[in-house]
Amino acid sequence: MGVKHFGARVARLEDPALLTGRGRYVDDVNIPGMLHACFVRSPHGHALIQSIDAGAARQMPGVHAVLTADDLPAPMAGARMPMLVPNAAIAALRTQHCLARDEVCYVGQTVAVVIAESRYLAEDAVAMVEVDYDPLPAVSDCRAALEPGAPTAHRDLPDNLASAFRQSFGDVDAAFAGAPHVFRESLFQHRGGGMALETRGVVAHHDRITDLLTVWSATQTPHIGRRMIADLLGRSPERIRVIAPDVGGGFGPKAIFYAEEAVIAAAALLLGTPVKWIEDRREHFLAATQERDQHWDVEIAVEADGRIRGVRGSLIHDTGAFVPWGVIMPYIASATMPGPYVLPAYQLDVKVALTNKVATTPVRGAGRPQAVFAMERLMDRVAQGLGIDPAEVRRRNFIQPEQMPYAVGLIFRDGKPLVYDSGDYPKAQAEALTLADHAGFPARKAAALKAGRHIGIGIANYVEGTGLGPFEGVTVRVQQNGKVLVATGATNQGQGTRTTLSQIISDRLGCRIEDIEMSIGDTAAIANGVGAFASRQAVNAGSSAAMAAEVVRARVVQLAARALGVPEAEVAIEDGKAIAQSGNRPEIGFGDLARLSQGMPGFSMAAGDMPGLEHTAYFTPPQASYCSGTHVVEAEVDIMTGGVRLLTYSVAHDSGTIINPLIVDGQVQGGVAHGIGNALMEFMKYDENAQPVTTTFADYLMPMATDVPTCRIAHVESPSPLNPLGVKGAGEGGTIPAAAAIVAAVEDALSPFGIRFSETPLTPERIVEALTVAGAYKRAAS
Amino acid sequence: MGVKHFGARVARLEDPALLTGRGRYVDDVNIPGMLHACFVRSPHGHALIQSIDAGAARQMPGVHAVLTADDLPAPMAGARMPMLVPNAAIAALRTQHCLARDEVCYVGQTVAVVIAESRYLAEDAVAMVEVDYDPLPAVSDCRAALEPGAPTAHRDLPDNLASAFRQSFGDVDAAFAGAPHVFRESLFQHRGGGMALETRGVVAHHDRITDLLTVWSATQTPHIGRRMIADLLGRSPERIRVIAPDVGGGFGPKAIFYAEEAVIAAAALLLGTPVKWIEDRREHFLAATQERDQHWDVEIAVEADGRIRGVRGSLIHDTGAFVPWGVIMPYIASATMPGPYVLPAYQLDVKVALTNKVATTPVRGAGRPQAVFAMERLMDRVAQGLGIDPAEVRRRNFIQPEQMPYAVGLIFRDGKPLVYDSGDYPKAQAEALTLADHAGFPARKAAALKAGRHIGIGIANYVEGTGLGPFEGVTVRVQQNGKVLVATGATNQGQGTRTTLSQIISDRLGCRIEDIEMSIGDTAAIANGVGAFASRQAVNAGSSAAMAAEVVRARVVQLAARALGVPEAEVAIEDGKAIAQSGNRPEIGFGDLARLSQGMPGFSMAAGDMPGLEHTAYFTPPQASYCSGTHVVEAEVDIMTGGVRLLTYSVAHDSGTIINPLIVDGQVQGGVAHGIGNALMEFMKYDENAQPVTTTFADYLMPMATDVPTCRIAHVESPSPLNPLGVKGAGEGGTIPAAAAIVAAVEDALSPFGIRFSETPLTPERIVEALTVAGAYKRAAS
Repeated sequence: MGVKHFGARVARLEDPALLTGRGRYVDDVNIPGMLHACFVRSPHGHALIQSIDAGAARQMPGVHAVLTADDLPAPMAGARMPMLVPNAAIAALRTQHCLARDEVCYVGQTVAVVIAESRYLAEDAVAMVEVDYDPLPAVSDCRAALEPGAPTAHRDLPDNLASAFRQSFGDVDAAFAGAPHVFRESLFQHRGGGMALETRGVVAHHDRITDLLTVWSATQTPHIGRRMIADLLGRSPERIRVIAPDVGGGFGPKAIFYAEEAVIAAAALLLGTPVKWIEDRREHFLAATQERDQHWDVEIAVEADGRIRGVRGSLIHDTGAFVPWGVIMPYIASATMPGPYVLPAYQLDVKVALTNKVATTPVRGAGRPQAVFAMERLMDRVAQGLGIDPAEVRRRNFIQPEQMPYAVGLIFRDGKPLVYDSGDYPKAQAEALTLADHAGFPARKAAALKAGRHIGIGIANYVEGTGLGPFEGVTVRVQQNGKVLVATGATNQGQGTRTTLSQIISDRLGCRIEDIEMSIGDTAAIANGVGAFASRQAVNAGSSAAMAAEVVRARVVQLAARALGVPEAEVAIEDGKAIAQSGNRPEIGFGDLARLSQGMPGFSMAAGDMPGLEHTAYFTPPQASYCSGTHVVEAEVDIMTGGVRLLTYSVAHDSGTIINPLIVDGQVQGGVAHGIGNALMEFMKYDENAQPVTTTFADYLMPMATDVPTCRIAHVESPSPLNPLGVKGAGEGGTIPAAAAIVAAVEDALSPFGIRFSETPLTPERIVEALTVAGAYKRAAS
Repeated sequence: MGVKHFGARVARLEDPALLTGRGRYVDDVNIPGMLHACFVRSPHGHALIQSIDAGAARQMPGVHAVLTADDLPAPMAGARMPMLVPNAAIAALRTQHCLARDEVCYVGQTVAVVIAESRYLAEDAVAMVEVDYDPLPAVSDCRAALEPGAPTAHRDLPDNLASAFRQSFGDVDAAFAGAPHVFRESLFQHRGGGMALETRGVVAHHDRITDLLTVWSATQTPHIGRRMIADLLGRSPERIRVIAPDVGGGFGPKAIFYAEEAVIAAAALLLGTPVKWIEDRREHFLAATQERDQHWDVEIAVEADGRIRGVRGSLIHDTGAFVPWGVIMPYIASATMPGPYVLPAYQLDVKVALTNKVATTPVRGAGRPQAVFAMERLMDRVAQGLGIDPAEVRRRNFIQPEQMPYAVGLIFRDGKPLVYDSGDYPKAQAEALTLADHAGFPARKAAALKAGRHIGIGIANYVEGTGLGPFEGVTVRVQQNGKVLVATGATNQGQGTRTTLSQIISDRLGCRIEDIEMSIGDTAAIANGVGAFASRQAVNAGSSAAMAAEVVRARVVQLAARALGVPEAEVAIEDGKAIAQSGNRPEIGFGDLARLSQGMPGFSMAAGDMPGLEHTAYFTPPQASYCSGTHVVEAEVDIMTGGVRLLTYSVAHDSGTIINPLIVDGQVQGGVAHGIGNALMEFMKYDENAQPVTTTFADYLMPMATDVPTCRIAHVESPSPLNPLGVKGAGEGGTIPAAAAIVAAVEDALSPFGIRFSETPLTPERIVEALTVAGAYKRAAS
């Protein structure tokens, strides 16, 4: 087997179509007779619905329907949406109705939907739907939500505590009781979003002839979507096809199933016409799920030399008004905090608070950026407190490669013991420091200060559970025309899934990469699928691709040996052909072998033969594979404006064996951009009435190209022993430690002023405020 | 495992929908914007096409296109249609072009197609297409076709011999040289058709959004159709879906792939609109394939006691103008002749003749009725010649059950040695004779003669290779709603496939039969499929259904044991629920188990688990399973009119283990009706210029209900050891020996006149003619 593509910098096969306008997104799906939807959404953070009068809207020319909850078919009308990840730890188990019944719990919640001949008409009609609301007190801040006497996010719940649980191992009391030093932090990472280029969107179409309901959705999880729609419509899943076409970015918020998907599907069935809904950006700010929004109170006990004795504290996670993804994020956060360090004792008390805001579900990193922020900020406190270099404090605490596999002492979010499978944390940090010329930094800092410039350096390490289960599948099918069809439940929102799977399959099967046709994100193409989240596709779908290709290759060899008249050992496979030196013919192509594999009508097949040159493999990972890495940031702060400029950004990234360094580099770079946004800019703000106040890109700031330096990237490759490719996930690692490293660098730049920061985003306003409090301007003026 | 349905007379699940008008046939597929097709067909048996002028037709309002061969897309335009069953024995390998290029070789051959807004307009426009033909001499009779100097059916072929081969075993010359008796027959069975209630029909629709070409066709073989369309259109098979919806009868002619299917598919692509073509009855007479049409010259050498020493002779098979199904029928015929008898030596020289008639391909029986006719007529000659009762002659020659498995000495059509797997031929004949009250017949005959009535009895035995490969597949999938989806490449034109597969699966899986949803005849539902022919579906799809259901059941037990907290041995499965006495809950339904089988997003599955509660099994039979039986017919001949009335019709039928006696009875009864038509009425006549002269049901007579007695049926069950169910095919056996038994009964009725018949159909005209020649009316008048 010649390895031509695996590990190479293969240019993305997706890009020619996408770059020349031949991509097809949900909004490109146009069906004759299609109607357009617009949603009536709650303008209140919390209110009762007294009545809905849609009479005027229904009478507008071009309006075909206004649907409220009672107009939806059973069981959808009365039921709350299905839980994606049920969990016994959730006390106030609650998902939302597809259309609100008598209460709305966040601004933007779906109340009704107008179906009209154009989006313009639908928007106009939405304004004519009169909803009589009775506003209730709302709760916006997760800490306030858990205070006694706080307004409850739901009228019928006694309080806002959705869940409370403790993570712990070791004797944390003893660790703190005897500790020479204890350091404490109180940290708050605020809300941000995924902010994909393409907003959400759904087109639904029921074909009467085949009785098939097809739903195109800009989703990361079409197979899960089909399950949900089947439940909500009481319809056979076999009569539902969900297609995620080209999708312009996912980042997590498109991984969950939304009310809008179900409502548009129901509307298409009810009206008997195709229906389209494309989310506008304001709706995306209001109703697409968000993340971060965690408050941590933590402390660390260390020896005199900086070695950790224990960590303890508490975490409040703001889940918003509902819990569609269960308690996954605070759970991940609590299990991520130990990181790459030998941690003898740990205890974290987690509380999940309901607020009157849109629900939080995983956004790139999924609770890990907050945990890494907490742990790395503590490590910096230790360094500062003990006067040890931050890199050295970390070095003293690293789990060593020879300790792998390393059992942390918790159960991870995959239901399995949290055991790091492989990794070389000291090496990753060393490489990142080298990339960053850490050794030369003191000189650079001294020179900068002389020039009146404030530069600083920050370091952050992380370990990330990736490649989560339960499975992903890949079908490899050699067709009669010699092309190789690949179908997978994995999806593609920009990750290059088509490219990486093609690399694996072309090598393992022995076909030309351009002869692979791929069906991605279509429930009609493969029976079972999960989708894109948790940096899981390379591990799950990649392994399945390798497994399926190898089975098909073996069958190719078997059939070719028979056709060429040689022993199997003499058959070589190359570029979609089987070749033999001594056979009765020199070669036979994949297409002819595919025909042979079908047998002939009426003839018996050879004993043991199966029809078709195809195989479907489902890789089921035994547990998460843990990727890791180190970010080192050098930043300059303009103390007059509070502006932060990132001078260099160095990443040593270990996601196991690398399938395509070009794609992994892209993922790292993109993840860092997301992390920069979280660290410095992105802030989804709500006022005290839970009214969102940042619903445009003028209010909610995103990093631009000029804000994001080109990363210096080193790949450390510690192959995972848990899958046949040795790979780990790479989609989120770039984001996870970014805020920790950037805030550290800013603090370091402002070290002359002794300022500490405990919240993100670290906006210029906040920096100037801190400098003001620290007396920086007084001193500067004096 | 409780056997509730297997073997029971379960009422057909298909029938409520079909009987209340809720069936959906191809003509029920109506798509907005759909256009209608009508074909320009050759009016000549043989002619050159000088030119085609479609100008006037194209200008007619409502006509969207007139397509000739050159208008078709490559590679379809120039290529002949793919061979279904290539065979090295075919000398003049030839299939037709989708639309004729420069030569037409039978009346009805497709020359062009008009696509218009209605069928009416299309028919009118067809009349306006001016084709300038240059007629050539045509050949109509297969014996004449092989004479020196005969016109050739194709201009560029030197003669009409498509293929010649010999079947033989034993020392046939020695057998005849030393034989005390030799008897000879010269026999001709003429052409008939399948004459399904529903004619052929195609609707094709290209969906631009999914780039899927969907073709609804009244076909027995949708998966093969997809392969053909993919080749002809140069299109990926993954972008083609062929659906055989409800189909009103197949009988063989719908098993092959037709030019019309490809042309309508191409037209839908070219025009970008859905296109429908429904064959009218006249087209069906002209262009749907037909069968029988074989001339046999055979002789039998026997001992003095009637034991067979050998059989030899020659067979001319009329293949019509093309060989789309290769030489399968004459091959089957030549391999079927030995039948249930110990035959020491055998030699048959087969010639396949091209004529200017529509091609012959298998019609119910597929060459076997002719072979059985030849062998059984010889047995009757032996009986007459030696003065032994026909039943006794046969009894003396039977292969005995203890000789099973019995190797005949030939290679069968499945590519494997012709070895009878099981059967009890003496028992079957004895049971049929009992049903017919054979012992009482002499008394009945004597009484009838006294009353001036002529009654006779006829016996015929047969052995039929059924359940041919290469495979069929069945997917069994338990869905989240508790329903069980079954998908199969088997198809259903009235065989009750849904019912029999449901019986197997409900028992083996443990679900209610009404909870099974079945997708039949849809290439989108299962990757590989073959279809309905060769009495193969119960064996192939039935076995696959059992295999798949058992795998899924094992997984149900595994998951249920885990969910209920009991050992697997304690889990009972009933009516779609898993039940345990000692568990932590009393039961869990299939729907909940299906959900469990998907795992939870992000969680690892238990070691060894696969997603989904489903399995696809492909049974591949090692060789044919040989069913057998005896027909005994008592008939009365009205010597004044030549009318034949069948008084009783007794069938002992051994198709192995019986899944549903109700359905097998129906198959036997229907097959007998078909055989009665072949024996007495159905005759597709062509004149000497190869012009068909029987193109309406006024000219081509079919048996009516009053012509078909209710069969007395005995089931002998000799389970096949070749598949897990022990089943054999049952769809064709009713037809195969019918003509032999009926003609024997007529001869017996006319025994006072010493008349022998050598041709079918045995029409009243032919009987009166024979009676006239025999001087019956002179004697009666004298």
